[in-house]
Amino acid sequence: MASGASGASGSRRTAGGVRADLAGRVDQAQMRRANMGLILRHLRAVGGRSRARLAAETGLSKATTSSLIADLAGRGLVTEGETVRGGAVGRPGQTVEVDGRRVCGVGVEVNVAFLALTAADLQGTVLREDVRPLDVPHLTQDQVLDEVADLVGTALTALTTGGFRTVAVGVAAPGIIDPASGDVRFAPNLGWHDVPLATGVAKRLGTGAPPILVENDPKLGVLAEYAGLAGDGVQDVLFITGDVGVGAGIVSGGSLLRGGSGLAGEVGHLALDPAGTPCACGRVGCWETMIGLTPFLQRAAPADDAVHDPAIPLGDRMATLRRRADGGSISVLRALDRIGSGLGLGLSVLVDILDPQIVVLGGYFASFGDHLVPQVSAALAARRMEHGSEPRVTASRLGLMAPSRGGAHLALEGVFEDPTLLPPLAGGTSRTQG
Amino acid sequence: MASGASGASGSRRTAGGVRADLAGRVDQAQMRRANMGLILRHLRAVGGRSRARLAAETGLSKATTSSLIADLAGRGLVTEGETVRGGAVGRPGQTVEVDGRRVCGVGVEVNVAFLALTAADLQGTVLREDVRPLDVPHLTQDQVLDEVADLVGTALTALTTGGFRTVAVGVAAPGIIDPASGDVRFAPNLGWHDVPLATGVAKRLGTGAPPILVENDPKLGVLAEYAGLAGDGVQDVLFITGDVGVGAGIVSGGSLLRGGSGLAGEVGHLALDPAGTPCACGRVGCWETMIGLTPFLQRAAPADDAVHDPAIPLGDRMATLRRRADGGSISVLRALDRIGSGLGLGLSVLVDILDPQIVVLGGYFASFGDHLVPQVSAALAARRMEHGSEPRVTASRLGLMAPSRGGAHLALEGVFEDPTLLPPLAGGTSRTQG
Repeated sequence: MASGASGASGSRRTAGGVRADLAGRVDQAQMRRANMGLILRHLRAVGGRSRARLAAETGLSKATTSSLIADLAGRGLVTEGETVRGGAVGRPGQTVEVDGRRVCGVGVEVNVAFLALTAADLQGTVLREDVRPLDVPHLTQDQVLDEVADLVGTALTALTTGGFRTVAVGVAAPGIIDPASGDVRFAPNLGWHDVPLATGVAKRLGTGAPPILVENDPKLGVLAEYAGLAGDGVQDVLFITGDVGVGAGIVSGGSLLRGGSGLAGEVGHLALDPAGTPCACGRVGCWETMIGLTPFLQRAAPADDAVHDPAIPLGDRMATLRRRADGGSISVLRALDRIGSGLGLGLSVLVDILDPQIVVLGGYFASFGDHLVPQVSAALAARRMEHGSEPRVTASRLGLMAPSRGGAHLALEGVFEDPTLLPPLAGGTSRTQG
Repeated sequence: MASGASGASGSRRTAGGVRADLAGRVDQAQMRRANMGLILRHLRAVGGRSRARLAAETGLSKATTSSLIADLAGRGLVTEGETVRGGAVGRPGQTVEVDGRRVCGVGVEVNVAFLALTAADLQGTVLREDVRPLDVPHLTQDQVLDEVADLVGTALTALTTGGFRTVAVGVAAPGIIDPASGDVRFAPNLGWHDVPLATGVAKRLGTGAPPILVENDPKLGVLAEYAGLAGDGVQDVLFITGDVGVGAGIVSGGSLLRGGSGLAGEVGHLALDPAGTPCACGRVGCWETMIGLTPFLQRAAPADDAVHDPAIPLGDRMATLRRRADGGSISVLRALDRIGSGLGLGLSVLVDILDPQIVVLGGYFASFGDHLVPQVSAALAARRMEHGSEPRVTASRLGLMAPSRGGAHLALEGVFEDPTLLPPLAGGTSRTQG
């Protein structure tokens, strides 16, 4: 007799997911944008189909459906392809499908040690990747913003030349972000307070540049990982990233956890060892002091070793240490063992609270997957409750590119929520007018 | 230039929130149910309006809208009220609005120490509350199921006599629940393994009884608390409940966190004190050994004190201890101080990970709000990061009734997802046929 009534969240959304204001008013233009998004997401989920079938499946009127499709086609987001018959009765229609091969999103990560850029089209194909070592804490904010704008500007020019239209740029940064303004409120590892990252880059790019979105790096990292996993039915992902800082990105029930003030997943300062090392934050035994990149490097190699040199790309330094570990270096293996046990300790807490299906080790941890994954898996299995289940543990295949890939994803995802983010193509497309 | 592209979750849902199967097929009846739910939620969110306006706002065709409204009215979920003019042009229409004053949900909590029942109508009005002390661990499962069925059966009879139609019964139980089957997989504090709670109660109630849903008690508790807070714009709630066990219910971004296997919020066995007390689970220093009801009672009163007597309602026992605390009892105040510091320790971890706007102390903690809230608030404030924000801490106003209230909410919420859960009224309503 049990029935699975799901989604019991009590959320006050109207049809189409549009929020009403407190007086209960609904904006008609907002509803139209939401319905365009519905059609685009529906097409992405179920594949190409005729207008008549789209109208029947969504419950939208045929006139509304045609008008919305014309608008989407005018923005280069859908195409009408081969002629299909809907059934025995009625005139034949053309298949409408998601296009977007010429629509792209750009993602950038501002890391402590480097800038990374990924451009991807609406179908998820990576068009461009670029990494520049950059010792951010030792540069002025203007110097960093100049570098970011130069990296993005170069990519935008190349993409435009290649016939791509960039929807938006999604920038990943560590620390506390205000996504509404695009400001970095506080990023201790960059030494940044209240830096207007979005407006600073936009100003340098000049008019006509796409909108700049900013989000915390592990949140964008988990979006990228989740996009690669969602086809397998995975809805609950815990992504843990480490470089100088440590952070978690959490997707639960298919949704990104942001928290009330955007700080969900700020796990670097979990106090996990009351007898531990003092942290720069003033507390003792923070998780970051156990598994951050700095204590790992300190244990893995002497102070004058080249693996400490910020001028060398982090990926290359990690590859060096990885080769030493594979070669049996005692200091690197001991350092990894400490990282593995620290990861196991903190992830046990996160897994008890969040119950993810999969734990993805990102950031520098991803370079040492075959050393860290078995140790972390064993720690989680040892804590498994009767009738409980422990998550699968895996190393990120995106590695250090996960946050910038997530930035491209964020930039593109906006189109599925509001297709009008992409302006109409000059000239329009007369054949799709309803 | 920053633009707030939200909802970047990458979830593959079609229009209307219906999930397509792996082959991309969408069930038409499922789409119809989803659109009925959309209309009902839209009406709840924005209030009564004419059919023409509903069709315009949702983008559904007028024919579809009329047909769906007729169906909803035939189930007693909406009514058509006074005549309104939509504007200068067109014939006048009648206002459609959510009815549901005769539609109710029943919630039950199976606690270690008592059964609680709450019945509420679709507008949230509580129709009935009932509490029975019950020493569950010392009864057979059949005896407990008999008691639950008797409590529910009595309520259903009274509600039917009063002219109410009960949609479903939502049962809260501690431990690991399988919501799909309604079985309790493992509830160590009840001594239950694989107990068919939903089917056992349904069998006793006989044919014609409403469906029985089962969910974990803190998850239903947080739904009840969230329902009371959502009007204030709160979307991120952490509810912590304590009796013999300790558990968390988490609403993040307006959605209940379940986790990959329904275990999100199983925080009773977080290992917070490596030098602590052995736990029944085999670990050491679990949060439950620090703040559970048993260690609290042991510290607050000698073993022969009546506050340990399970035959006395838990609420009465807590009221006794509350009076002693207010009267300055050293043993009770010391015990509360230990609970407050243990709550502060564990909640600091949960708050770092989840970033809630509000922390609600439920279960027995709610009886001691003015002792515990300041201590917990101070612990969270001491950990506030620069530019971070700490949540508001409050004691539950629903107290021990939160999980059963949440059960009633769960039972009713199903109607907003799938209005066909409620069968058509005998005779139908001819005046609303489209």
